[in-house]
Amino acid sequence: GPVSVVLKELRCTCLHVMPRVNAKMITNLQVFPAGPQCSKVEVIASLKDGTQVCLDPDAPFLKKVIQKILSSGNKK
Amino acid sequence: GPVSVVLKELRCTCLHVMPRVNAKMITNLQVFPAGPQCSKVEVIASLKDGTQVCLDPDAPFLKKVIQKILSSGNKK
Repeated sequence: GPVSVVLKELRCTCLHVMPRVNAKMITNLQVFPAGPQCSKVEVIASLKDGTQVCLDPDAPFLKKVIQKILSSGNKK
Repeated sequence: GPVSVVLKELRCTCLHVMPRVNAKMITNLQVFPAGPQCSKVEVIASLKDGTQVCLDPDAPFLKKVIQKILSSGNKK
């Protein structure tokens, strides 16, 4: 209900992060800056199988994944 | 209704992109890879004033914004 939604928004979402994920599996990548609701940055990837996973914002592979996604529209 | 939701998901979302946006105003940044629903990458930023804006995935400033957000949890 609405109460649980509010609570979710006032908390950190990610308890664990996946060490790696295949960029091709990602359908949506969300980045939430640190803020009052959570003191750490959270990166949440939605995958083609319908699941969502958290990624480590400090992992070097994440920058590569973001770069890969951003350039995915340029290849034909 | 459900039909309009399906239609929205099968189309590109961004018609226009904002040339710049203040990173501090962003509460959530979403990156959608190119796919069957849209042949171009789409980057959608939710802002503190409740609005959503599209950003150019090829803009050099976007990489800086992403970097700034990813490191936002490291500064105290």
